[in-house]
Amino acid sequence: MPHFTVFKGAQDGAPKKSTTQKPDQLVEDQVLVRVTASGVCGTDLHFLTHDMVLGHEGVGVVESVGPDTNCGHCHECISGEEIFCAERAMYSEANLDQGSFASGAVWREAFLHPIPDGITDEAAAPLQCGGATVFTALYDVKPNEVVGIMGVGGLGHLAIQFAAKMGCRVVVLSGTDSKRAQALELGAHKFVAMKDADTKELASLWPLSRLLVTTSAQPAWDTLLPMMAPKSRIYPLSVSEGNLVIPYMPLISKGITVQGSLVATRTVHREMLHFAAVHGVRPVIQTFPMTEEGIKEALDKLDKGKVQYRAVLVLQ
Amino acid sequence: MPHFTVFKGAQDGAPKKSTTQKPDQLVEDQVLVRVTASGVCGTDLHFLTHDMVLGHEGVGVVESVGPDTNCGHCHECISGEEIFCAERAMYSEANLDQGSFASGAVWREAFLHPIPDGITDEAAAPLQCGGATVFTALYDVKPNEVVGIMGVGGLGHLAIQFAAKMGCRVVVLSGTDSKRAQALELGAHKFVAMKDADTKELASLWPLSRLLVTTSAQPAWDTLLPMMAPKSRIYPLSVSEGNLVIPYMPLISKGITVQGSLVATRTVHREMLHFAAVHGVRPVIQTFPMTEEGIKEALDKLDKGKVQYRAVLVLQ
Repeated sequence: MPHFTVFKGAQDGAPKKSTTQKPDQLVEDQVLVRVTASGVCGTDLHFLTHDMVLGHEGVGVVESVGPDTNCGHCHECISGEEIFCAERAMYSEANLDQGSFASGAVWREAFLHPIPDGITDEAAAPLQCGGATVFTALYDVKPNEVVGIMGVGGLGHLAIQFAAKMGCRVVVLSGTDSKRAQALELGAHKFVAMKDADTKELASLWPLSRLLVTTSAQPAWDTLLPMMAPKSRIYPLSVSEGNLVIPYMPLISKGITVQGSLVATRTVHREMLHFAAVHGVRPVIQTFPMTEEGIKEALDKLDKGKVQYRAVLVLQ
Repeated sequence: MPHFTVFKGAQDGAPKKSTTQKPDQLVEDQVLVRVTASGVCGTDLHFLTHDMVLGHEGVGVVESVGPDTNCGHCHECISGEEIFCAERAMYSEANLDQGSFASGAVWREAFLHPIPDGITDEAAAPLQCGGATVFTALYDVKPNEVVGIMGVGGLGHLAIQFAAKMGCRVVVLSGTDSKRAQALELGAHKFVAMKDADTKELASLWPLSRLLVTTSAQPAWDTLLPMMAPKSRIYPLSVSEGNLVIPYMPLISKGITVQGSLVATRTVHREMLHFAAVHGVRPVIQTFPMTEEGIKEALDKLDKGKVQYRAVLVLQ
């Protein structure tokens, strides 16, 4: 089969037999299908006089496949939830020869995102994971919702900005008072130093309709549940081993949701970048050179909690 | 009827017949109801030793009504989420002299629901809490969703019917094979005896997009998480003390939701009753007389897991 038969529209409205050349070699995710049946749709009538191959309800048998045809077809991928694909090639899970601590990398074009004008590369970098993670947890928030942000760090300082600029009432929960001024400057409306807070102070706050936990370890869930409004949602964004251990009946009787959440789908990621560009959400960064020494210094500071608030490696 | 008969919990765990005084005059939106039937719920077991009138799945006939109303103005109430009202008068929380293990009760008119034609009082009773609870957890389900129902009991046997009649694919998870035939008859499409299931069998099931846990105690969460689809939702409907202890990272990386859920708002409750009426959802019941002996027998059987599937007390 060096070519296959096709049927095209023609000026006189009578479909004409013709041929289409079969490619010598299938590339990328091309698939050669031998058609066995095709539905005929009213839409085909609209194109009956056009010089084009007709038919769009085809069924057939796969004859041969290109080299890249093994991904993107599962339920998660075709519904736009590709970050939950069982075959997903996530950081640390596939292609360990590629990464962004590097001078270059080979990635699939469909998984790259253009950086909007007005955001520098240095500022854009922390948005690719930190920004995406908190934006996802705020994606369906309503303006005027009371959003709690626990932790003022790499994720938290971005979450404060996003939530404030989405029109939410932002309550920041931090360990001590040390970050109060900066949290308020980033857009927080209330700030609570959890260490010094008594139950009376916590009870007098706006009840939280959504809580993003951005601390590096899991918090004391039993102190947080009384702060939650009925039907509220908790997003545990920390990376942590072991179990989530949270009081059972308060969760049930207040109708609270615990929502597992992971970075952003590509759709949400693009919206995040546009939102950040338009509304001026920018990470507070410290830059380091993309050298062995620079990387070591950045990681050391991160490990000790000394980065305010996100480290970025820059090629020189 | 200057007073009505009620049945109360007592220290020895044997329900005692008593009386509640009928008010001389109904005030505000009070309603005097003559009880005709009451479901017996696991929650009643929890209050068996409390000095309070038992029963919260009551059905009956309105005898007389009060003049007015003066409550329902908080955020939760005006947004239709009155079950989360901070002032709410829930079973066991307010007015311990009223309950549906009784010959009558005084309740607010606005919180009564007309029973649709075609549902007997006996069949309607278990819908008032059991049916409402599972219907709420299915309220926004999509037809063709894969719904897991864990536990075939008072709640589970209703959940199977509701989910099947909503067009879902219903997977029942039960301890042993003993309830297989009845689960399939109620509408289940797959049945898994968890005791005998190996990981291979569990992995070959349809991934669950929603799981209703209706067992009387919390399940082994770590065996259930691998059965969940990405972005799926878990509804823990059991009443349980202590903590929810669930593997942390699998929850995050699959984007799973744990959704606290509590009976039904009045809106959802009415829809539940109409759905049950139109689609023929009916509890499988065992009836007992509304007497001290009858109540004791029903509660004993319930406690021993011998009720198939919901006990109902009937006035004679």
